Amino acid sequence: MSKGLPKRSEDYSLWYNELVKKADLAENSPVRGCMIIKPYGFAIWEKMQAKLDQMFKETGHSNAYFPIFIPKSYLSKEADHIEGFAKECAVVTHYRLKQAEDRSGLVVDPEAKLEEELIIRPTSETVIWNTYRNWIQSYRDLPLKLNQWVNVVRWEMRTRLFLRTTEFLWQEGHTAHATREEAKEETLKMLQVYTDFVQDYMAIPVIQGIKTESERFAGAVDTYCIETLMQDGRALQAGTSHFLGQNFAKAFEVKFATREGALEYVWGTSWGVSTRLMGALIMAHSDDKGLILPPRLAPIQVVIVPIFKNEEQLEAISAAVQGIVHQLKERNISVKYDDRDTHKPGWKFAEYELKGVPVRIAMGPRDLENSTAEIARRDSSEKQTCNQQDIGSTVQHMLSGMHNSIYQKALKFRDQNITTVDSYENFKEVLDTRGGFVRAHWDGTIETEQRIKDETKATIRCIPINEEAKAGICIYSGKSSSQQVIFAKAY
Amino acid sequence: MSKGLPKRSEDYSLWYNELVKKADLAENSPVRGCMIIKPYGFAIWEKMQAKLDQMFKETGHSNAYFPIFIPKSYLSKEADHIEGFAKECAVVTHYRLKQAEDRSGLVVDPEAKLEEELIIRPTSETVIWNTYRNWIQSYRDLPLKLNQWVNVVRWEMRTRLFLRTTEFLWQEGHTAHATREEAKEETLKMLQVYTDFVQDYMAIPVIQGIKTESERFAGAVDTYCIETLMQDGRALQAGTSHFLGQNFAKAFEVKFATREGALEYVWGTSWGVSTRLMGALIMAHSDDKGLILPPRLAPIQVVIVPIFKNEEQLEAISAAVQGIVHQLKERNISVKYDDRDTHKPGWKFAEYELKGVPVRIAMGPRDLENSTAEIARRDSSEKQTCNQQDIGSTVQHMLSGMHNSIYQKALKFRDQNITTVDSYENFKEVLDTRGGFVRAHWDGTIETEQRIKDETKATIRCIPINEEAKAGICIYSGKSSSQQVIFAKAY
Repeated sequence: MSKGLPKRSEDYSLWYNELVKKADLAENSPVRGCMIIKPYGFAIWEKMQAKLDQMFKETGHSNAYFPIFIPKSYLSKEADHIEGFAKECAVVTHYRLKQAEDRSGLVVDPEAKLEEELIIRPTSETVIWNTYRNWIQSYRDLPLKLNQWVNVVRWEMRTRLFLRTTEFLWQEGHTAHATREEAKEETLKMLQVYTDFVQDYMAIPVIQGIKTESERFAGAVDTYCIETLMQDGRALQAGTSHFLGQNFAKAFEVKFATREGALEYVWGTSWGVSTRLMGALIMAHSDDKGLILPPRLAPIQVVIVPIFKNEEQLEAISAAVQGIVHQLKERNISVKYDDRDTHKPGWKFAEYELKGVPVRIAMGPRDLENSTAEIARRDSSEKQTCNQQDIGSTVQHMLSGMHNSIYQKALKFRDQNITTVDSYENFKEVLDTRGGFVRAHWDGTIETEQRIKDETKATIRCIPINEEAKAGICIYSGKSSSQQVIFAKAY
Repeated sequence: MSKGLPKRSEDYSLWYNELVKKADLAENSPVRGCMIIKPYGFAIWEKMQAKLDQMFKETGHSNAYFPIFIPKSYLSKEADHIEGFAKECAVVTHYRLKQAEDRSGLVVDPEAKLEEELIIRPTSETVIWNTYRNWIQSYRDLPLKLNQWVNVVRWEMRTRLFLRTTEFLWQEGHTAHATREEAKEETLKMLQVYTDFVQDYMAIPVIQGIKTESERFAGAVDTYCIETLMQDGRALQAGTSHFLGQNFAKAFEVKFATREGALEYVWGTSWGVSTRLMGALIMAHSDDKGLILPPRLAPIQVVIVPIFKNEEQLEAISAAVQGIVHQLKERNISVKYDDRDTHKPGWKFAEYELKGVPVRIAMGPRDLENSTAEIARRDSSEKQTCNQQDIGSTVQHMLSGMHNSIYQKALKFRDQNITTVDSYENFKEVLDTRGGFVRAHWDGTIETEQRIKDETKATIRCIPINEEAKAGICIYSGKSSSQQVIFAKAY
């Protein structure tokens, strides 16, 4: 029972869209490009938020809140930043509606026009660095390490649930430092936090790298990223960490007195992950039956389904289930007992498969007699019969095994889908057939990068930072290349 | 050392504004009426959020996320709702900026005009009920109990940090039910959740009541509220819970099939509290030395300040402090050890008084010899010497005592400042002198309510729901009155 989900092999894109809707994760809103995140989808996002927030705090960051509105003029202060965001921003021009004179409905009140238009934040560097000017006077005020969890708006023309939406939820960290070295260190530290989160909680392997100039964040000196690979062979950028140099400090005149009394510009970083991670989570592991959620982020880790013919059987099963629920809760495992009599067990099995609940426990009259239960693992569909008294430890072991197993599966897939090529012919062939990451020499110029993109739709995902740089020949231009880079078609 | 804070008795309003800024809670942003919530203020809000969120989940609610944009036409669908919000909403009219032709800066691109303007949500009933139409078909889909933590915008003309800002943070619960009774019950249940939170965590006593027609939420059948009293005798509405009847179901055509097969409109509620609660938290307890935070919401519950003359003393003290920190953490008490050598103990004492840290522990060489420490309570300024081994239990006891003590103090103040009056003369006199809540008979008409408001600036805060209704004579009109109501000048 696949609940009418298309097969991945037939139409991966449709499979994703349908899965997001059928598993009750999110849906499109009537406002173009905006999404409604449904309770089940939001519960997963909340678990991601909670873990990330803890990791940010453990690395010395505090949360704060900066306004959603950015005065239009702020956007102009950092030259690259304008180029990056001016073309896709929502603009507030008025602050009042009124009844139309013909009473036909509400119209914008022309008398309530703002003197300066306000932009809905696409990202908050400008408003935050404008504030940092007042907060930072001396080296004693540094480092300043803040984060905020907010909504942002970028007017995208082509949108897809979670992957690219006009409004999305994210966290944006903004830090200020006294030295280049410290800011660089922070940039890489947060890249590592993202890496640990995506690998250890989402069970998705990543490649750490640095973006080329044309893919860099508008206003950054360097953009670091983690790149993941989806089952259809397309890449997905899961998080970015930017070394801003002194760019925003200069644009907003943020200087500090050093210990020696000199006046210097502050060094900055910013870093973010968004609800886009939900897209990666969904696509990385799931199958034709539905979601496969990484156990550490599943809102319901275990579901218990009773199999009964009458009220009496249900009562007896429910009594035994209480002990199992207790065992699981003691181990901080979240459990749902679905004893509804409005749906049959088979329907429920398919429903929880669709929703990616990692472990399903079924208990019928025979189990009751034998003091057992049937435990099924979502990813492998393996079933085993287990003594009721051992269920807590068995499930705990199973959840941890499942995390490792789906991570290893994704890692194997990823590694099998990194192809190193030495010719442009071969490059195009790989992209057209198996896809995946393609490792190749590139001459370092924007022109070559752009031509390859125009001809193949593949972009340079990153220059890997954990691979030894070996010189070679650019596959496109034949010019010399200092290092291989990773290309892919990407989300 | 009051760090330059004005006295409450001299200028309460200035005291509040200065306290918010000096205690690093929030500040005004360059965008009119919007605030920046600073890390210390946000840490308090996070504790409030965490507790409320837990209470919402324990009462069966789930979180979700609905878009920030509301199509202009949605606002028109519920007649009262338009009246309430059209005059104060931020309107997005364009989705792109471009370089001015004279290169003088960015201008709105006239070609990127939206067909239908979008409103930044002032509240989300319209977008949510528009969605509920698709989610609710049958009685099996009910109840639907959702909440979201989001930012909203209401274009206020006069703003004050936390109390009234153009953008603010809040939670909005939106529930749908099969019967009037169930929706009514939900409305009152959430009023009680708010009451429990404000009393048991913020340590502020409340009056539960129902709003008069003119103070009712735009679109509600009944608005319930909790009203609190500040130290200057002005009232502050701390939370509202609305019984929406079938108003939004009718506006958005949300019907469900009953168990018997009939088709009926769904019953609704909505309820919210916002960052305005921060204003109440600050004003209810604090004094001329600074904040007094209720212990259960203080981000730092205990600060430890070492008193030392040299590095050697500091090292010895720090070693002893480790044991104390351990004792406190074991009891889930949050503690900060401030061993900075850049500031003197006296400066630190004043700083933590200003910031309202409930308990301060000081330890010097003499304490070290005697295995003691000095413990000071923020609210009463009481100090005691305590054996180091007893500090965990002593502090735990003290925090709980402090909660009760500030609650009782606020309760006593509130009760002493409820004055029952029988004449309009007396009513005006009380308002002009002591202020506070004034209990009086009112004839139930909007006209009388409005005249009293125009003449005295006092509004009807609520019709209390926990007082026995006794008939009488309206103090203003001399007409008959069914019950006394609570008037006050309010924030």
